[in-house]
Amino acid sequence: MAYGLPRRFVLFRSTCYGPRRRCKRVPSGGPDRYEEINLFCGRSLPHSWWLRNMAHNKFTHSPVAASKQLEWKVPLGNDDAKLNFVLKTPKGTRDYHPKQMAIRERVFNIIINCFKLHGAQTIDTPVFELKETLTGKYGEDSKLIYDLKDQGGELLSLRYDLTVPFARYLAMNKITNIKRYQVAKVYRRDDPAMSKGRYREFYQCDFDIAGKYDTMVPDAECLKIVHEILSELQLGDFLIKINDRRILGGMFAVCGVPENMFRTVCSSVDKLDKNPWSDVKKELVQEKGLTPEVADHIGDYVRQSGGLELIQHLQQDPQLSQNKQFLEGLSDVKTLFEYLELFGVTNQISVDLSLARGLDYYTGVIFEAVLLWDQKELHVQQQNDHDEALNVGSVAGGGRYDGLVGLFDPKGKKVPCVGVSIGIERICSLMEKKAAEERVRTTTTKVLVAAAQKDFLKERIKLISILWDSGIPAEMLYKKNPKLLSQLHYCEETGIPLVVIIGEQEIKDGVVKLRVVRTREEVDVPRGSLIEEIRKRLSHS
Amino acid sequence: MAYGLPRRFVLFRSTCYGPRRRCKRVPSGGPDRYEEINLFCGRSLPHSWWLRNMAHNKFTHSPVAASKQLEWKVPLGNDDAKLNFVLKTPKGTRDYHPKQMAIRERVFNIIINCFKLHGAQTIDTPVFELKETLTGKYGEDSKLIYDLKDQGGELLSLRYDLTVPFARYLAMNKITNIKRYQVAKVYRRDDPAMSKGRYREFYQCDFDIAGKYDTMVPDAECLKIVHEILSELQLGDFLIKINDRRILGGMFAVCGVPENMFRTVCSSVDKLDKNPWSDVKKELVQEKGLTPEVADHIGDYVRQSGGLELIQHLQQDPQLSQNKQFLEGLSDVKTLFEYLELFGVTNQISVDLSLARGLDYYTGVIFEAVLLWDQKELHVQQQNDHDEALNVGSVAGGGRYDGLVGLFDPKGKKVPCVGVSIGIERICSLMEKKAAEERVRTTTTKVLVAAAQKDFLKERIKLISILWDSGIPAEMLYKKNPKLLSQLHYCEETGIPLVVIIGEQEIKDGVVKLRVVRTREEVDVPRGSLIEEIRKRLSHS
Repeated sequence: MAYGLPRRFVLFRSTCYGPRRRCKRVPSGGPDRYEEINLFCGRSLPHSWWLRNMAHNKFTHSPVAASKQLEWKVPLGNDDAKLNFVLKTPKGTRDYHPKQMAIRERVFNIIINCFKLHGAQTIDTPVFELKETLTGKYGEDSKLIYDLKDQGGELLSLRYDLTVPFARYLAMNKITNIKRYQVAKVYRRDDPAMSKGRYREFYQCDFDIAGKYDTMVPDAECLKIVHEILSELQLGDFLIKINDRRILGGMFAVCGVPENMFRTVCSSVDKLDKNPWSDVKKELVQEKGLTPEVADHIGDYVRQSGGLELIQHLQQDPQLSQNKQFLEGLSDVKTLFEYLELFGVTNQISVDLSLARGLDYYTGVIFEAVLLWDQKELHVQQQNDHDEALNVGSVAGGGRYDGLVGLFDPKGKKVPCVGVSIGIERICSLMEKKAAEERVRTTTTKVLVAAAQKDFLKERIKLISILWDSGIPAEMLYKKNPKLLSQLHYCEETGIPLVVIIGEQEIKDGVVKLRVVRTREEVDVPRGSLIEEIRKRLSHS
Repeated sequence: MAYGLPRRFVLFRSTCYGPRRRCKRVPSGGPDRYEEINLFCGRSLPHSWWLRNMAHNKFTHSPVAASKQLEWKVPLGNDDAKLNFVLKTPKGTRDYHPKQMAIRERVFNIIINCFKLHGAQTIDTPVFELKETLTGKYGEDSKLIYDLKDQGGELLSLRYDLTVPFARYLAMNKITNIKRYQVAKVYRRDDPAMSKGRYREFYQCDFDIAGKYDTMVPDAECLKIVHEILSELQLGDFLIKINDRRILGGMFAVCGVPENMFRTVCSSVDKLDKNPWSDVKKELVQEKGLTPEVADHIGDYVRQSGGLELIQHLQQDPQLSQNKQFLEGLSDVKTLFEYLELFGVTNQISVDLSLARGLDYYTGVIFEAVLLWDQKELHVQQQNDHDEALNVGSVAGGGRYDGLVGLFDPKGKKVPCVGVSIGIERICSLMEKKAAEERVRTTTTKVLVAAAQKDFLKERIKLISILWDSGIPAEMLYKKNPKLLSQLHYCEETGIPLVVIIGEQEIKDGVVKLRVVRTREEVDVPRGSLIEEIRKRLSHS
């Protein structure tokens, strides 16, 4: 109102950025606006995070004086023009602030280092593809694909995942063997739920091995990678569930499910990780039309999970052991388990017969990693806040897809693939929560070049130039005559460990004062040995 | 034809991937198809690069046997379905292959390290913005913005650069001071010209300083950064040209150009780096309607360039010294020059009165960096191949834009900004040319775990697990029984420096054979000290 804008806009702004208030109710704009406000209120982040972030980044409500320098008129409307639209990012998207980016960089580094440890190369593909490339690859979810306007050229769509473009890349370039990783954004016009970490734009971190190799060797490496990454990230206990599409298919066939219902039965069974069997059975009987007997038969199977002993038990099942497809899948899972034993990771691996995975293109082994403490938290939270409880999901998932590349080859030539996608958004959101009370540095600056007196701008410029040219990350305040106190305060605020201070006396003596921010210790260092002294101190800290 | 596809498609594929032929003529699909073919023929890369790359990445024409594992039918059409559309990336876009990505990573690291050296934080913004956010910010070029389909929601457009989203971010979050960098893709529905490095999707690397500070201090840092990056990249001699929008405005006013013609005159004058004055004058008189006298007056000014002496000369110009705007600009450029002298970079800096820069939002100092050897090459090439000659452009550019953030603030509050964008695509394309004869590693693998005999898959798995757990990048072939020769060949092909070989004798003796690929030296190392021995050898190499 104060700005001469519609009430909706004012509400949006005042609830978002005001440090004291937090929006609890749906504002006048309705649910859509609520979600956008949640974004900026950071429901997935504690409010205190935002307060800190505001302070760190010098978010301020104070007006900025108009620059005197603007003489060449900006041609984009006259200077008095008021903003006549809502200032926001598109629905389901967000900006990543410096603190979030710093955490993200840490997580990305761990993941990418692991991919590189395993000898992966990286590629990149365009953010949009020909619409036809994506058409028909995602089943029902195809409606969530973002299309671009046809502006007299090709019909284009934003990529929905990294797997289909990867398959297109392999077929187009006739590549039959590659181990590649790709970290990039994907787009889904899904119903966004910021608080649950469901965005319309988000990152995927994919690692895939393409090529015809001996059974389960690359598959085992994918699981080893998931294990390494989750261990390295220190997110607590986790479990990697494995299953096989052929095991599921064989089971359903034995239970008497018609083949054309495999997928729909799959999607019900997949809900067993969140819902009790009674709910799933109800869905199978009432919605999917199975008889209670068939449903119970399925239920007996899919509620089993375990290790090698389960595999051996299933091999002797009188009915299942008659199904060729089932036995093939089971035999591969057994081989996989043997390799995983050699890797020493089977403690965190479990065969879970209810695991089905949503994506249509999987043909063999499938897997999914979940955090265990998270599942415990689930129960606590469910009592308090149903909404928050849904904030649980897998942190990695993948499987074998041997048919996808062939869809892009004119002769249908297949390139077997297995791959894993790390749930980076969920991991980053957990890391942000963990770091909420922590002070996260958003820069790598080691030294602030400061002056104790007036008119030392040029001396500061000369000195910082020497630091930069020596590769020492350094900053100085851009003001001509900043107060020493504000310079020291800036260091404490942003975590800069060292200050180099010059003044008249120092210039006269050919020294600079080196101050350690944490201890407030100060020493005079001859200018000639400054770089060496700084390097020494940085290597010790 | 062979594939039962239209002739156009076959032509596309046969000219692109065949190692022997290179497309020289426009294929039947017309110019559009030609450009796309250029992409895959890599006109901007030597053909030899592609041959090598094909070999490195195991591009092959040999058929892949259909996987036996595919039993669970891929639901995306039946297995016999033929591909019924052209297999390509959208017009003006490309995939980045592993070798290109490896070069890109090197370049990005240099640039980002420099940004961090200067204490910058990073942010990220969505790939698309509300259409309104971008509307009216790019003048005529707005027609090049990619719009998304309105699917019952908001009107969205892909970002055209990183500057406008940055300004939106500042205004939306009420940030008045920040030093940030951002490396991300931007989109322009421009006429693509792959051979000239003009794509519809490309990266930008931006560094900007927002905040009201003392004159020219942040501006000088931006130029210092350009100097550091171009020096570090070792691209040869370069020159950074600087000018100021107020100097241009003042000059034009003094010459008698009406204010509403400043921009159009600017765009003519900006062509002086590629065209002789006679052409520019012709354009000013015949197309823009200036009198020959006014044009000549402009010509006398804008053909000047130099250092401090030019600035001093201009300060005494009887006419220009009467123009307030001109004097303000000149005085700031002089201050800038003084700071740059303190940085010791003025050897590569020149005030160039013809520099105008295309973007509308600049309000003060503007600058642009060019490679000098490139300009020399220009003349040679112009005689041979007019098309290639245009393959020249600036490798960095930027300036001060004090009005842009205010356009997003409901009260029009301004946040003065200065920033620079590094021309990463052009730099990467130059680096690729430089690396054409070089062997570029696309992985960081240090050790291949190999076996000399059959049935050692499990032993290899055990051993590689130890390497991975010790953080040593390692690979093994996925075959059960690969030949030793193919394992050694793989190392030479991909640049892996060390091989660890196990066989019966080694297992018996409790050792492994460590082989240095380059020298073919082999030593037996006790298993207990393997990791230590590998680390020692890697640190020496």
